[in-house]
Amino acid sequence: MSDLSKLQQWFSSHREEIHSELFTFLRFPSISTDPEYTKFVSECAGWLLDWIRKLGMEGELITTPVHPVIYAEHMKAGPKAPTLLIYGHYDVQPVDPIEEWESDPFQPTVKDGKVFARGALDNKGQIFYALNAVKALLELDKDLGVNLKLCIEGEEESASKGLESVLPTIGEKWKADYLLVPDFDIAAPNQPAITLGIRGIMAMEFTLTGSNIDMHSGQHGGIAYNPNRAIVELLAKLWDEKGEVQVPGFYDDVKELSDEEKKVLDLRFDKAEYTKEFGVNAFGGEEGVPPLENNWLRPTMEINGIEGGYTKEGFKTVIPATAKAKLSCRLVPDQDPEKIYKQVEDFLKKNVPKGMSIKTQSHGGGYAVRGDVNSMLAKAASKAYSEIFNVPCSNVISGGSVPIISELVKASSSEVVFMGYGLSTDNMHAPNEHFGLDRFEKGFFNRCTNH
Amino acid sequence: MSDLSKLQQWFSSHREEIHSELFTFLRFPSISTDPEYTKFVSECAGWLLDWIRKLGMEGELITTPVHPVIYAEHMKAGPKAPTLLIYGHYDVQPVDPIEEWESDPFQPTVKDGKVFARGALDNKGQIFYALNAVKALLELDKDLGVNLKLCIEGEEESASKGLESVLPTIGEKWKADYLLVPDFDIAAPNQPAITLGIRGIMAMEFTLTGSNIDMHSGQHGGIAYNPNRAIVELLAKLWDEKGEVQVPGFYDDVKELSDEEKKVLDLRFDKAEYTKEFGVNAFGGEEGVPPLENNWLRPTMEINGIEGGYTKEGFKTVIPATAKAKLSCRLVPDQDPEKIYKQVEDFLKKNVPKGMSIKTQSHGGGYAVRGDVNSMLAKAASKAYSEIFNVPCSNVISGGSVPIISELVKASSSEVVFMGYGLSTDNMHAPNEHFGLDRFEKGFFNRCTNH
Repeated sequence: MSDLSKLQQWFSSHREEIHSELFTFLRFPSISTDPEYTKFVSECAGWLLDWIRKLGMEGELITTPVHPVIYAEHMKAGPKAPTLLIYGHYDVQPVDPIEEWESDPFQPTVKDGKVFARGALDNKGQIFYALNAVKALLELDKDLGVNLKLCIEGEEESASKGLESVLPTIGEKWKADYLLVPDFDIAAPNQPAITLGIRGIMAMEFTLTGSNIDMHSGQHGGIAYNPNRAIVELLAKLWDEKGEVQVPGFYDDVKELSDEEKKVLDLRFDKAEYTKEFGVNAFGGEEGVPPLENNWLRPTMEINGIEGGYTKEGFKTVIPATAKAKLSCRLVPDQDPEKIYKQVEDFLKKNVPKGMSIKTQSHGGGYAVRGDVNSMLAKAASKAYSEIFNVPCSNVISGGSVPIISELVKASSSEVVFMGYGLSTDNMHAPNEHFGLDRFEKGFFNRCTNH
Repeated sequence: MSDLSKLQQWFSSHREEIHSELFTFLRFPSISTDPEYTKFVSECAGWLLDWIRKLGMEGELITTPVHPVIYAEHMKAGPKAPTLLIYGHYDVQPVDPIEEWESDPFQPTVKDGKVFARGALDNKGQIFYALNAVKALLELDKDLGVNLKLCIEGEEESASKGLESVLPTIGEKWKADYLLVPDFDIAAPNQPAITLGIRGIMAMEFTLTGSNIDMHSGQHGGIAYNPNRAIVELLAKLWDEKGEVQVPGFYDDVKELSDEEKKVLDLRFDKAEYTKEFGVNAFGGEEGVPPLENNWLRPTMEINGIEGGYTKEGFKTVIPATAKAKLSCRLVPDQDPEKIYKQVEDFLKKNVPKGMSIKTQSHGGGYAVRGDVNSMLAKAASKAYSEIFNVPCSNVISGGSVPIISELVKASSSEVVFMGYGLSTDNMHAPNEHFGLDRFEKGFFNRCTNH
């Protein structure tokens, strides 16, 4: 184990190189969900693997039906030492609405000590401080104290189908004692938090078709059923006035937390601060349930996209042939994403107006995962955070999802810990995503002292 | 008056020239609603005015705040002869969804005797056979038997704001005894029909804003109210289960037709034929009201566009900052478009979730217009149709709207007749709009014999 001052010296003397390489990493428009970007996703994977190999790790690109998974290992600590698997992803979210970005999402721009770019936080920034920590430890000690494995995939933002498909076939490769996922948040700039769980997800889309062509709303209005009307009526039925999801069976498998279990979580929520930060004045979720319980402990459903007819500037008096929507549900233990998909699909099909055709499509999903506050790794992680911040570390759950994690936990037979240095104000998945370079540096030290 | 054989000879000997000029007219992408096309709208107006001047008519471009109005006259029949004002428009609808066009919308393509292009029917095709009829009559007789005025505007597809703004200031110029609007349909390929009325329209859009940035549906789902959920719940409230519009006061000013008045209309509707033609199996309108009564005699409301969040390929787990919709109502006598706009705006504002902000915008409107089956012009028009088709002419009402017509009727103090050679299967306002060249020719003869 290196002492902190040696690490600080290493970081200081490498700062320019680290930032320059981070910016190179951020310049790849590795948007996994859009086939037009496949080439760039692939180039990004190649660049990162080269970077990792230069550390002296054995690495390879594992081919999947879509984007490759980077696998690398450094197994020199011997068979008795524990094995740590670090998971991350090199793909990023799409950049729409592009007009709201104040700088090019793929030209990293530093302002007020923050780097603005798509992926600055999620997950390029976070995985890259972890990788630099590995680099520093190897350069300083040539010994990590653990056997290290890396699994860095290219489809986290589009349901991890590729990694999911190769998990069962690669077998032993994934085995580890601990799984570290540096893709998460701290509670506040000066308040570290260990993430004890993530929600699962089910994502889907559907299209309603009312006619074989777009029709004139004068000639056909009052005769044909407008798919735009059908889709709003259908989607509005998904919730009652109390915000409860109306899909039969939706809440059946929800495992409630005991008051005891809730007590370890920091469920404080400052509504005024939230409104100030995000401009939100209308609140959703289930009526009577506190905001963070809704976000962490209850399943929710969102319409992530809806589109039908003419939406550009001006006006077009059209009854469109089709209308479509993208839906996702965030799930909690023990909800099964496939079962939820079927329930939602059934509900939509049963409630569509007579004669209107509906076509549904799954975008995959994943189970929720919960860690144990009393596990050795959780305790070690809390301790490292407390040292860096000099305040006690709190426990949170993430409302977000990393669909592949429950599968990876199973395949690796490991104990999982979610960490990270994100803030909810970093515009993750939104225009002007950014990450504080100070937090990047803290992340580096945290990863070092963790080991 | 020329006799029919002379006209047939004229058309035959000019057919190539007429088609070539029609295709030139159709090649201008004169989309009035989209500011990006302003240049082409302007070029189209210039070309058409030149064409009209070559007939020996006095013409000018009347400047408006947006697109110019073509005014032209041929007043050589003397003060005792009646004056006929012909109205038309040289602008066209947008072309979305462009991927559904089988040929370039602005490269006219002839297939099976039909010309495919945006504007092939609406209104370039129909106004151009009327203008060619004027050309033939002037070449053959140098005398039209009437004083002729033309009013061809460039914003019919975007609420005619320009023409509306110059109507009061130009005064006498518009005065006429008769107003002819060749922008309408026949009932079937072998069934001529005179159009005794059109519906009015009110068009608007609104935007709901829930936050100041697009947010991550994991981090914020269950806390923030999703504008996509708010907009579907809001829009779904516009109708009850019987298809009746729920905006208070919406039906208050509807003037019901007596059974006697309904009797002159051809209200027959073949549902099976309609389904075959348009692929429509789900029917809208008010429950219990026959389809054509819903379309001709009842006001209707349509969602012409809805958009929120991520709608491209793949998936993005976003709670969008905003969601928006475009709405229009088709109106009947004596509904007032401005009053209806205010009623709908009030309804939306009252029903939006608490804390969510709403911004509304009017896209203008126009009153419904009804003609008189017993007027001299209606009778003359019916007679001309019957002669061309050799069957009795029926009476219909159009579910569509030409917002400016009620204003033009008022400004010109004229008696109005709506005619035309469109068919409901011509894909007006939709991809692959087309017009039969045989109907273009019939329109030419009809316009000639009408005079």
